[in-house]
Amino acid sequence: MKGWWNELARVDLSSFEVRYDEVGEGLLKKYLGGRGLGARLLIDEIDPRVDPLEDNVLVFSAGPLTGTTIPTSGRFSASAKSPLTGTITDSNVGGSFGKEFKRAGLDAMIVKGQADEPVIIDISEDGIKMFQTDLWGSKTGVCFDEIEKRSAVIGPAGENEIRYASIVTDGYRVFGRGGLGAVMGSKNLKGITVEGSKKVDVNDQEKLKDYVKKASSKIDSSPVTSRGLKKFGTPILVNLITWLGMFSKKNFRECADEEEADELSGERMKEEIVEDHEGCYSCPIRCGLKTKIDGKEGKGPEYESVWALGSNIGLFDLDKVTELNYRCNEMGLDTISTGGTIACAMEMKEEGIWDDMEGFGSDVTGLLYKIAHRKGVGKKLAEGSKRLCEEYDCELSMTVKGMELPAYDPRGAAGQALSFATSNRGGCHLRGYLIGEEIFGVPKLFDRFKTSGKPELVKRAQERNAYLDSLIMCKFGAFALDEEFYSRFLRSVTGVDFTISDLHGIGERIYNLERQFNVKAGFEREDDLLPERFEKPLKRGTSSDNVFDMEKMLDQYYDCMGWDQDGEPKKETLERLDIPNF
Amino acid sequence: MKGWWNELARVDLSSFEVRYDEVGEGLLKKYLGGRGLGARLLIDEIDPRVDPLEDNVLVFSAGPLTGTTIPTSGRFSASAKSPLTGTITDSNVGGSFGKEFKRAGLDAMIVKGQADEPVIIDISEDGIKMFQTDLWGSKTGVCFDEIEKRSAVIGPAGENEIRYASIVTDGYRVFGRGGLGAVMGSKNLKGITVEGSKKVDVNDQEKLKDYVKKASSKIDSSPVTSRGLKKFGTPILVNLITWLGMFSKKNFRECADEEEADELSGERMKEEIVEDHEGCYSCPIRCGLKTKIDGKEGKGPEYESVWALGSNIGLFDLDKVTELNYRCNEMGLDTISTGGTIACAMEMKEEGIWDDMEGFGSDVTGLLYKIAHRKGVGKKLAEGSKRLCEEYDCELSMTVKGMELPAYDPRGAAGQALSFATSNRGGCHLRGYLIGEEIFGVPKLFDRFKTSGKPELVKRAQERNAYLDSLIMCKFGAFALDEEFYSRFLRSVTGVDFTISDLHGIGERIYNLERQFNVKAGFEREDDLLPERFEKPLKRGTSSDNVFDMEKMLDQYYDCMGWDQDGEPKKETLERLDIPNF
Repeated sequence: MKGWWNELARVDLSSFEVRYDEVGEGLLKKYLGGRGLGARLLIDEIDPRVDPLEDNVLVFSAGPLTGTTIPTSGRFSASAKSPLTGTITDSNVGGSFGKEFKRAGLDAMIVKGQADEPVIIDISEDGIKMFQTDLWGSKTGVCFDEIEKRSAVIGPAGENEIRYASIVTDGYRVFGRGGLGAVMGSKNLKGITVEGSKKVDVNDQEKLKDYVKKASSKIDSSPVTSRGLKKFGTPILVNLITWLGMFSKKNFRECADEEEADELSGERMKEEIVEDHEGCYSCPIRCGLKTKIDGKEGKGPEYESVWALGSNIGLFDLDKVTELNYRCNEMGLDTISTGGTIACAMEMKEEGIWDDMEGFGSDVTGLLYKIAHRKGVGKKLAEGSKRLCEEYDCELSMTVKGMELPAYDPRGAAGQALSFATSNRGGCHLRGYLIGEEIFGVPKLFDRFKTSGKPELVKRAQERNAYLDSLIMCKFGAFALDEEFYSRFLRSVTGVDFTISDLHGIGERIYNLERQFNVKAGFEREDDLLPERFEKPLKRGTSSDNVFDMEKMLDQYYDCMGWDQDGEPKKETLERLDIPNF
Repeated sequence: MKGWWNELARVDLSSFEVRYDEVGEGLLKKYLGGRGLGARLLIDEIDPRVDPLEDNVLVFSAGPLTGTTIPTSGRFSASAKSPLTGTITDSNVGGSFGKEFKRAGLDAMIVKGQADEPVIIDISEDGIKMFQTDLWGSKTGVCFDEIEKRSAVIGPAGENEIRYASIVTDGYRVFGRGGLGAVMGSKNLKGITVEGSKKVDVNDQEKLKDYVKKASSKIDSSPVTSRGLKKFGTPILVNLITWLGMFSKKNFRECADEEEADELSGERMKEEIVEDHEGCYSCPIRCGLKTKIDGKEGKGPEYESVWALGSNIGLFDLDKVTELNYRCNEMGLDTISTGGTIACAMEMKEEGIWDDMEGFGSDVTGLLYKIAHRKGVGKKLAEGSKRLCEEYDCELSMTVKGMELPAYDPRGAAGQALSFATSNRGGCHLRGYLIGEEIFGVPKLFDRFKTSGKPELVKRAQERNAYLDSLIMCKFGAFALDEEFYSRFLRSVTGVDFTISDLHGIGERIYNLERQFNVKAGFEREDDLLPERFEKPLKRGTSSDNVFDMEKMLDQYYDCMGWDQDGEPKKETLERLDIPNF
């Protein structure tokens, strides 16, 4: 069984001890790596009810395909209980960090405890060491300047345990959602450096070469991956989503019009601020954008960020939005939750609900600093919009399970709406990205306004993304590659035969394991609903005058998932999927 | 009227504006400067009920004698509402910062609002400027290395708004008590730099010269200031206070014995770690200690710190205590409240009251870091022992009004006990230091175990310290100088005649103004009591088997203060002292 070393490191920051262990082959076959392995390891380490900023454990994991020559296989995963949502969560990142980790000889690393003073974990083929660091307090850019190796670091936001703090790698590739940066901060772990040169052992090099060639050609010929993402990066979506009436504006109160959105579009970015493109390790798409504003160079913004820090807070000035994006990366803040929280606070201010908001003005730039340092008005914003609205007893938080929703108004696509509602890390588009089926028509177009058949579609998408996140492969590749490719990649690398159906079974297992974690953490059916705002239709645009019967979709979704009507996996479902008791 | 410029600067960090103003002569004559002026300016700026970490205002002030050649006149004052106690508070510092401030042409500076990003205020004869700074996150030592001018900075503790964070100047001269560092932190004010060369205008230079000469000779011949403090610094007190059975141990559960205390004594320090002495500007006593442990150089510990970080937490290892003291200065933590809070937590742990204390072990060194950064177990400790005990519903916090008591067991001196209880910034020894009267016999010895006459003595001491803090003169000088000296100094510098009775009147006015602030902030008679522990006698030592009737002393104290039996200043008292309505 190639592509895995079975190598697991257990790092205890409280005692400064490192133990090396193995992951059983059985576990790898059942959970692959990345997100699946992370979830499986996590349930042995923590009780689902722990305070995520007190007794949490972080699992970093590569997958069987990480570090190979397979296009879009350069990703790397981190898992923990989320300080933002209280659910199990994971986030994965592109760039080259994962490749180095894998080449240093590791499949996964469990980090527990808390260091007495700020430390950096250094990973190399010689093993894992811990060093005290003077970088605490520094923005991420300073860290990347000072640290010569490949590194994943937190900014001030993570240090100060902002509930949506990110972990930043390679200068701007970010473990963005769910506040994993805050978990690092709570452990006094400023960063991780890594260097490795081992080659991933491949079972059938020839076959792999052949599949890689075919996959690359597919990627080069798909309009989404070649023309769209390759030429404009993710912001190519701005105009499209606006035409569909789903590019929300001002905390989902309405949608941006074409003129406004055009200011933030991929086309406009290319014209005005993009200097160059760059790709993750082993990726031909190269959707990353190197940009420049006012003589200052940086990376991004991505589609989600240009929306969250732009349209969602009513800001249609590309330079300013880009500046905010740079700052979020410097502070180590998730752009989506940052924008969503500010958008919510803006509406609260307009409505006169939150009136002691000294320092909350039109200058959002300074606000990011205040959030990251929990200063003044930033103290309350640092907790995210859900907790903020709970304090003021209002319904203006556009979140699911406490996570701020991303850049698609759910009133424009029934499947995506259900996917947001049932995502087991909260309001996110990456657990089940129905935009493929409902908008791009990949692999097949479904009417975005119809609810029938969507629960089954969401289930399939959630399974697919669960196994993709465990291999780990980028979801952008999946716009071009059909699922047969993943089966082939895995077989040629590991020598083990995984059919598409096997892969979906693994995805289903992972999804249910995560769900079971959340059930034990106290989540219920009512947590699988969208904010009240979405029960009323949009007033303009091509998605107007439309709402979905979420409760009905939920009934059907639970049925097809094998869950009871409270949303709990049935005993027979857990048994069928061989999910351990915990 | 010399010795004052009447110059007041108003700095608004929110708008980056500086306005220059004058302090009226009437105000200066009524409140002198320093603490008195600070309190008087503060009541115009803030409502006593504000959240001290949200809408607070900081007043920095020199006094009429600051920057002159008068011995011990090198001090400088800061006032605000305390985040630790909720009372009005001030703290003053030695060194040379005050002299520079005065010589830059200012009497006081009011700092309000909150900067968007960390700033430093720079004061010079050309005016006040604000600069953004990269020093946020840095320990104080790094700041002093980087900043070439005289500066007052906060460490990580102030940045993270630890309720007992200090402001550090000149490397180790500290505005220690009451959490003024947290107020700076809440304003994103990392530091203040200052440089000035104006000379303080003196009315009668010849007379002043004469008085200075006489005062210096007094200081040189007093055993406390010349032999004790000059030779050993403040830790000369350790053995004396131990012999008196008042050198508390382990959260005031008992008192240290001679053998234990000797490990921390001034004599031991001189033998083992003291390298040199240094004095504040214009001070011949030079009680500051330059020390060295394990090749590392630093300053202190002072008497209070060697107790708080030593005996009070059951640690009798001079090197370790010294290391903790260095760290408190680096982090910007008040040593007394830090030690008091840790001592309290240790007892809670022993008693099984606080059981989720992961990371709270015998290693106090790492704990200081955690407190300053609100990490892990440090989160709860960062709030101080009073809030900690409220959370766990126990009576183990050795505080008055939320401020941790200093290094004298109140069961050994009735006046000091009453002074602790009624101090209007909480459990502190510097509002009324009865150790002079009850132990040193300065100016006259009173039986420490008797309560009769003590309320009047406490009143006099509180008045005296209020005007000393406003001139501003160091209390150590007062061991050698009788009050007539202050009247002479003031007259020769300002040309205005202040009798000793005038000075006591000013002290009384200041004390009542502060009290009135506290009454309006919600403080009541029950806040003027010592912790329950002191209702039971000590079991061993020369202060054992003794408790005081605090309620009775309080009745008498209120009477002689002109307050009603709820502890509120009577209307006629306020009118007599000409205290404004606010």
